[in-house]
Amino acid sequence: MRDFNIKFGIVGIDHRHVYTQAEFLIELGAELVGWYTKGSPTTLEGFLKRFPQAKRVNDPRILLEDPNIQVILISAIPSERAKISISAMKHGKDVMSDKPGVLSFEELDELRHTVLQTGRIWSVDFSERFEVPAITLASQLVLDGAIGDVIHTLGIGPHRLNANSRPDWFFDPDKNGGILADIGSHQIDQFLYFTKSKSPKITLASIRNMGHQQFSMFSDFGEIALSSEKANGYIRLDWFTPKALPTWGDGRLFLLGTEGTIEVRKYCDIGGEADDNYVYLTNGAKHEKIYGGDAGCPYFYNFLVDVLERSETAMPQEHVFKVMELAIEAQKIADGEKENELI
Amino acid sequence: MRDFNIKFGIVGIDHRHVYTQAEFLIELGAELVGWYTKGSPTTLEGFLKRFPQAKRVNDPRILLEDPNIQVILISAIPSERAKISISAMKHGKDVMSDKPGVLSFEELDELRHTVLQTGRIWSVDFSERFEVPAITLASQLVLDGAIGDVIHTLGIGPHRLNANSRPDWFFDPDKNGGILADIGSHQIDQFLYFTKSKSPKITLASIRNMGHQQFSMFSDFGEIALSSEKANGYIRLDWFTPKALPTWGDGRLFLLGTEGTIEVRKYCDIGGEADDNYVYLTNGAKHEKIYGGDAGCPYFYNFLVDVLERSETAMPQEHVFKVMELAIEAQKIADGEKENELI
Repeated sequence: MRDFNIKFGIVGIDHRHVYTQAEFLIELGAELVGWYTKGSPTTLEGFLKRFPQAKRVNDPRILLEDPNIQVILISAIPSERAKISISAMKHGKDVMSDKPGVLSFEELDELRHTVLQTGRIWSVDFSERFEVPAITLASQLVLDGAIGDVIHTLGIGPHRLNANSRPDWFFDPDKNGGILADIGSHQIDQFLYFTKSKSPKITLASIRNMGHQQFSMFSDFGEIALSSEKANGYIRLDWFTPKALPTWGDGRLFLLGTEGTIEVRKYCDIGGEADDNYVYLTNGAKHEKIYGGDAGCPYFYNFLVDVLERSETAMPQEHVFKVMELAIEAQKIADGEKENELI
Repeated sequence: MRDFNIKFGIVGIDHRHVYTQAEFLIELGAELVGWYTKGSPTTLEGFLKRFPQAKRVNDPRILLEDPNIQVILISAIPSERAKISISAMKHGKDVMSDKPGVLSFEELDELRHTVLQTGRIWSVDFSERFEVPAITLASQLVLDGAIGDVIHTLGIGPHRLNANSRPDWFFDPDKNGGILADIGSHQIDQFLYFTKSKSPKITLASIRNMGHQQFSMFSDFGEIALSSEKANGYIRLDWFTPKALPTWGDGRLFLLGTEGTIEVRKYCDIGGEADDNYVYLTNGAKHEKIYGGDAGCPYFYNFLVDVLERSETAMPQEHVFKVMELAIEAQKIADGEKENELI
């Protein structure tokens, strides 16, 4: 494992995901030079505890204009991420954004254009794949042909609401993107990744508020169905994680292959031990429970390699754009803005 | 437990489901008087082994016209079930059909009319609910309010193909109904039952042949999405059960409630013991694995009570009609015959 001598800055620490984004890079030898955020987000205390040595700056330009900094991490309010990304790339930086990385087709076009123009990397840390070692193991199994061709992915993405500790922007879909664009983007990423689909289409997208009428703009339930030339997918999202679950959500991924199936229990195993990161494989030869916790999270290593080598190993650039395009489209369909687009 | 002094006959033993249909009734004291089937279906040997004492007749009318027989079980080729049911009811018999009980809207109308006219019971044994004790336990938990209101059901219905032992009609959708009308009806039943929806609609229905091109008319994959005034549902069906799974399919039901979740692992627990009938409950107070194998299958008892008492305890008559109506509609949408009906 190489030790990366790369310096990075952070613009916007509004979501807790910034903790692991930064931690993974620091663990690989990258140096957090400084960070900027507006005001005092709810994540501030946790951030200061984790990164006491890093310097807070009072203008993001100090980081963007620092020639020693190669990478900018972004975990600002979702609606601000695209324009920070664009500005960072125009300043010569590679970018790793928290998901969702962009909320409108217009900004997505501008991101595409900026990447083309600057040659910079725009990456989105889809943590439900990139920070789950069991998914790394599942990826290896699929690549090794353990279940044949993946013809369906089924993702269940429940999340604990923790309404009291959420900032106001979280309940405003204009700022947060809505449930499909936000947590749906994780699962669209997994559908595209595991099925290697070339022409994916949204076949169903809906949102509802089933139990939190006090937040009138908020959707606590959402679903997306996808279909491509070779596979289908379904995604169920919700903010109903029950109090007694030992973690924030019983996230699952089911892969149906022509020769076998894989189920990933990402964060817990209900009713049993509080074990996370287990892969359940069934194929022609065996059915077994395999611990995936040691499989690592190569996205971060590969991202830093890409920064140095100008390669595309962490995630193809076009994949990121396609994920966010579909996530925005799903959200717009569910919002009723694109009703007639369904195939 | 009362001992039922009820006599029944069987018309059509073409699907193995007839074994358990008859066994449950015999166990409750009902008497199998005689049975009729065309030719020598693949189920014949197993049937003779299980019910050696029952008398085969060479004309179904012998059973339909026997005044001592109160109930007719039907497990004929699916396309023939409705007309046998209608004839049986017109002969004064109550009917329990294997699923799918009917394949066309026209026959469904005639079934509704016949029930109205004759006052007979037309029931369909949705075995993925009625023959799974863990589902009985899940039902009790939901009735007791363990997870609040059920706002989503997610059913996974994989089935082993066993192509060599299937009769020809199985691969002919005109006779078998197609994957959505056939095995989809089980899951539509569970959606309606657990969500108590009054105005369900199909929001997505698709079928594909992903890995069995040698059977040109056959769909080995299907999916249905439903939405009602209070809940959504998604159903994934396939004929890809891997060889090494210790049973015919890793059937699952996930219930998302406003106050908790239930997962039912119906037939096995992959990677662990070959345990079936487990319920995984998570709510505000606990998360636990509960054995549901002792919860029984009250459908059969209730059905016989209904025969004697002219009550409607096993399953509301309107529920059966609605399940089959939606199953037929889903199949027609997926077949491309009802494209514009999607909401």
